[in-house]
Amino acid sequence: MLKLDSDYMEGCHPNILEKLAEINFEKNAGYGTDGYSKSAKEKILKACGLENGDVYFISGGTQANMTIISSILKPYESVVAVESGHISTHEAGAIEATGHKVSTISGVDGKMEAKNLSRFLKDFNDDENNEHTVFPKLVYISMPTEFGTIYSKRELEEIYNVCQKYNVYLMVDGARLGYGLVCDECDMDISFLANSCDIFYIGGTKVGALFGEAIVMKEKDFIPHFKTMIKQRGALLAKGWLLGLQFDVLFSDNLYFKIAENAIDKAKKLKKIFIEKGYKLYINSPTNQIFVIIENEKIKKLRENVSFSFWEKYDGKSSIVRFVTSWATKDEEIEKLEKYL
Amino acid sequence: MLKLDSDYMEGCHPNILEKLAEINFEKNAGYGTDGYSKSAKEKILKACGLENGDVYFISGGTQANMTIISSILKPYESVVAVESGHISTHEAGAIEATGHKVSTISGVDGKMEAKNLSRFLKDFNDDENNEHTVFPKLVYISMPTEFGTIYSKRELEEIYNVCQKYNVYLMVDGARLGYGLVCDECDMDISFLANSCDIFYIGGTKVGALFGEAIVMKEKDFIPHFKTMIKQRGALLAKGWLLGLQFDVLFSDNLYFKIAENAIDKAKKLKKIFIEKGYKLYINSPTNQIFVIIENEKIKKLRENVSFSFWEKYDGKSSIVRFVTSWATKDEEIEKLEKYL
Amino acid sequence: MLKLDSDYMEGCHPNILEKLAEINFEKNAGYGTDGYSKSAKEKILKACGLENGDVYFISGGTQANMTIISSILKPYESVVAVESGHISTHEAGAIEATGHKVSTISGVDGKMEAKNLSRFLKDFNDDENNEHTVFPKLVYISMPTEFGTIYSKRELEEIYNVCQKYNVYLMVDGARLGYGLVCDECDMDISFLANSCDIFYIGGTKVGALFGEAIVMKEKDFIPHFKTMIKQRGALLAKGWLLGLQFDVLFSDNLYFKIAENAIDKAKKLKKIFIEKGYKLYINSPTNQIFVIIENEKIKKLRENVSFSFWEKYDGKSSIVRFVTSWATKDEEIEKLEKYL
Amino acid sequence: MLKLDSDYMEGCHPNILEKLAEINFEKNAGYGTDGYSKSAKEKILKACGLENGDVYFISGGTQANMTIISSILKPYESVVAVESGHISTHEAGAIEATGHKVSTISGVDGKMEAKNLSRFLKDFNDDENNEHTVFPKLVYISMPTEFGTIYSKRELEEIYNVCQKYNVYLMVDGARLGYGLVCDECDMDISFLANSCDIFYIGGTKVGALFGEAIVMKEKDFIPHFKTMIKQRGALLAKGWLLGLQFDVLFSDNLYFKIAENAIDKAKKLKKIFIEKGYKLYINSPTNQIFVIIENEKIKKLRENVSFSFWEKYDGKSSIVRFVTSWATKDEEIEKLEKYL
Repeated sequence: MLKLDSDYMEGCHPNILEKLAEINFEKNAGYGTDGYSKSAKEKILKACGLENGDVYFISGGTQANMTIISSILKPYESVVAVESGHISTHEAGAIEATGHKVSTISGVDGKMEAKNLSRFLKDFNDDENNEHTVFPKLVYISMPTEFGTIYSKRELEEIYNVCQKYNVYLMVDGARLGYGLVCDECDMDISFLANSCDIFYIGGTKVGALFGEAIVMKEKDFIPHFKTMIKQRGALLAKGWLLGLQFDVLFSDNLYFKIAENAIDKAKKLKKIFIEKGYKLYINSPTNQIFVIIENEKIKKLRENVSFSFWEKYDGKSSIVRFVTSWATKDEEIEKLEKYL
Repeated sequence: MLKLDSDYMEGCHPNILEKLAEINFEKNAGYGTDGYSKSAKEKILKACGLENGDVYFISGGTQANMTIISSILKPYESVVAVESGHISTHEAGAIEATGHKVSTISGVDGKMEAKNLSRFLKDFNDDENNEHTVFPKLVYISMPTEFGTIYSKRELEEIYNVCQKYNVYLMVDGARLGYGLVCDECDMDISFLANSCDIFYIGGTKVGALFGEAIVMKEKDFIPHFKTMIKQRGALLAKGWLLGLQFDVLFSDNLYFKIAENAIDKAKKLKKIFIEKGYKLYINSPTNQIFVIIENEKIKKLRENVSFSFWEKYDGKSSIVRFVTSWATKDEEIEKLEKYL
Repeated sequence: MLKLDSDYMEGCHPNILEKLAEINFEKNAGYGTDGYSKSAKEKILKACGLENGDVYFISGGTQANMTIISSILKPYESVVAVESGHISTHEAGAIEATGHKVSTISGVDGKMEAKNLSRFLKDFNDDENNEHTVFPKLVYISMPTEFGTIYSKRELEEIYNVCQKYNVYLMVDGARLGYGLVCDECDMDISFLANSCDIFYIGGTKVGALFGEAIVMKEKDFIPHFKTMIKQRGALLAKGWLLGLQFDVLFSDNLYFKIAENAIDKAKKLKKIFIEKGYKLYINSPTNQIFVIIENEKIKKLRENVSFSFWEKYDGKSSIVRFVTSWATKDEEIEKLEKYL
Repeated sequence: MLKLDSDYMEGCHPNILEKLAEINFEKNAGYGTDGYSKSAKEKILKACGLENGDVYFISGGTQANMTIISSILKPYESVVAVESGHISTHEAGAIEATGHKVSTISGVDGKMEAKNLSRFLKDFNDDENNEHTVFPKLVYISMPTEFGTIYSKRELEEIYNVCQKYNVYLMVDGARLGYGLVCDECDMDISFLANSCDIFYIGGTKVGALFGEAIVMKEKDFIPHFKTMIKQRGALLAKGWLLGLQFDVLFSDNLYFKIAENAIDKAKKLKKIFIEKGYKLYINSPTNQIFVIIENEKIKKLRENVSFSFWEKYDGKSSIVRFVTSWATKDEEIEKLEKYL
């Protein structure tokens, strides 16, 4: 069975396994106070061009989102996201479970538009009765988005400008950040991103780590007692060094970005095949998630040999499905798929 | 200054004040265990035609909504409402603060459509990934709605049928219930309503009481330990007899419905005047809230003599504003407004 | 049946009912923006000697506690109370339901001791692992306490000094404040209290109002957007003027304190009778709650004629029960009880 | 530096690393639907003698506790633990952050006593006012406890009997379960434990895994939609197979229990040394945590060469400190410590 469901199906870059084996019986301090975490933090801050920043490591994306958001917001404040945002849809109400509304605005191809956000925030400010509503205080975007699309430098800047004008914070969900930053269409690097928002995270789980996300904040004290908040949300790993070590390897010699390129290379090949075979793309994603409209009959048949994700119904006869490549995808897999199509 | 902002501006029906004065030094048991609460409960259940039902009294609408919803839902479940629903907008995130998402669907003139709800619930059931999302388990509608519109018997039945088909509960926010049930267009009575949902409440604050809402559930044990939940949400009045007494008076000799008629009578006159004077109604509400589109200049001028509510911007030049009548509105007030227009 | 269960059994001081009747058809602005609320606020601040303070009115004690505490604390912070504190015991987990731990320390006769609090806060600060625990940030005491006891000026000052030393806030639950401040043993007035804590509330429900508590904060901006927090907790009464009016009456001509004296007078008579009849007091309360140890057999017999509260088991044969007087208790009631004993 | 701080300082059993390397480029389904998780689940259920049970894997202990507890309890229900319980102290308010009170009772050497629990539950049931308090519905104990002590079969049975008598559930925190079950004093096996509670978890993080805990419930449907609850709490690892694989290895050939023995062996040697050198043990723990009372001066000196945990102050001159062995501790470490003492 050929598997193109997602980018979390393989293990990790071999360098990480090697390092894990090497230091297996070394004794490291707990809860992120170890040397690997320290080293990883320094490398990440350097890559991000952040002198006063700070870095925390946690296990997964939903965990990162809920911990960050519930740490920043006061009880009467909400986070603003597009309707297709991960926190709006596929986190089982994790944000609301911490007491906060996700205020949604409509997006385009998974992206938030600065003018739309601006209108939303202006309307809130103009509302004579806004004391009776939640106060938007944080904006959530994903890079790349849930549809594999990316923001340009200009687009991100515009959004951050709107945020600053209305005194709200900006966070970027980078669960697939590597794939977003290395794709051909991307005109920004991690340093630009890091300086164009208040807090973001670098996804490891889907980009070469066994698991783990690195939360980066532009200013060290952006969130007071964040470690205790991480603990409270069940997200403080006793063996924090496990996470530190992985990011230390990934941020050595630019490994994180180098390996991300493979996913993009394979995704481009995949896209080309679909187009040549006459399939219609639902969205022209420049990253590693390819959304294709396929007839339901064909989907059923294809699933005999390939696993991939159902996204949503397109019309009575067809559906939108998703194929995903990763840092580890091989050319043979793409070739196999071509045959099955 | 003529005041037509809302229906919570006056006190209460004089019968209530009289009764309060009469029994002021009587000693009553606390927390709703008194005789007035018992009597009011019996009268309400009789009016509702509910043999196995139960009634609880609490102070206000948002309190009723948050207490009911957080008592019914499991942590991973959500309540479904239209985008203009009170819980979706003007309760300062009260529902989310109890940990639950308000899943919104679009409505028409403030009303939920059965077919729209059906599609939403079907989509949820069909979604292969719904384990990653919240589970809709309760539907919230308002009667009358936030725009003063009402459901017909057929519409309510259709919605309840959809709910039962998908095994979700139905609650009705009746903060202005009296005005909805007595208006000309309404084809249902309180007994029909009570038997066409799982739980609803009868608004007293806006319909003749000093304050208070009566929560009515069709089955006695619909919510286990509801009294403790009411306590936990800060909604258990020590002097529960205050609420019981008010509803006991309002449900004697049909008083609640009789006094509601006055608001409808005055609202009809108001509407007639606006139409005759060439104003455009935003929504043709049959109840006591009249939404009118007025030029901003005119609004400013009108506010020198009349207070009313800004609703939202209509276009660059005009806004939607709201005028509200109540059980206590007098003909003179309507006549005064006519002069100012 | 003679009823001495609690001080929330009667209605309100007649002046309030009169005023309610007088202005019943007056139209007042909603949500606490009316003139009565404004006037009451000014009178209260004057009585409290607070120039930069602020006042909010809400319906009940548990509601006040949960709204205040959840507004002040960050998610990782806790409130400290004695084990017998109302928030630790009889609020059905209302504080925890807002996400916060109630950290308990032992008290003496319902009172917190400064030295005990100091030790608790010092231990927290000295704990090398306190990043893994909640951070105490607010101290909760009651005046009078749940056992009817009161703090002296010196005791309150000492507690507030400890709070300030450790940079935590102090709140005082004054659900029965009137009875505490007018009793013979009390050496402080409301102004001293108001200046010896960060926030407190003046109980109306049990001291002459129909219902309602006045939350007083020493500094106007102590809690940002408190009104929205009140709304979110379901505690923002549409007819806020109902509460404002009651406190406006109670804080005219010192009425609140004058009527409180009656409860103390009756409680002293009650205590005298119990002592003369050879009963043992569980606690020598100087206010309106009298705790007596009575044999279970005798309790059963007494309950044929008198209702009062069971407090807790004392030993196998006796129990602690509570008798409560109020601003409205009459001499006849005390005389009746004497006969039944 | 010799490190005896805790049992989470080393990596994992080499078999796990080998297996991880072996299947690194295999593609596995996400969110725990993979074959390794299935296999691990079967092995664990077999070891537990549970035919209708179920197993879920998550990352850490606090995460397990908060997810289990918030899934079982209704909003008005509490979990009961001893004062030294992990959820009562060192989880940064994680349980309260999900809305639930941790009701504490006093324990002995970290253990809950059946008679104490029984009294607590009886008092709750006898309390005429218990509608105003939280309802205890779940009992939390740790095996071994936070002080390294263990329950005997009889003690566990007695506690479970009390739970069943009062219709409350029993959960066992087994973060260090392996060390508890293999120590000399233990008279139960995992099957006895699994059948003497409703839900428990097997700690991997501290007993041979890189990270991960296996939650075991006696009945498959004990918690409905538990997977969605795990997702909501941020605890659903995309690469769930990482956890499944580790437990699959640990539950092959009894590995989990075999490697646990090493920690016990080393702890016994450690204890012997302390006793021979004249140190006083704070608690005579039979497992891998050794609590010793040492003079503060000596602690300071010792810390030049050895790292270990400060527990709490003992008196003005001495403190309680903790030394911990693990599945990976070597004899050389113990010998080194002997020299430094």
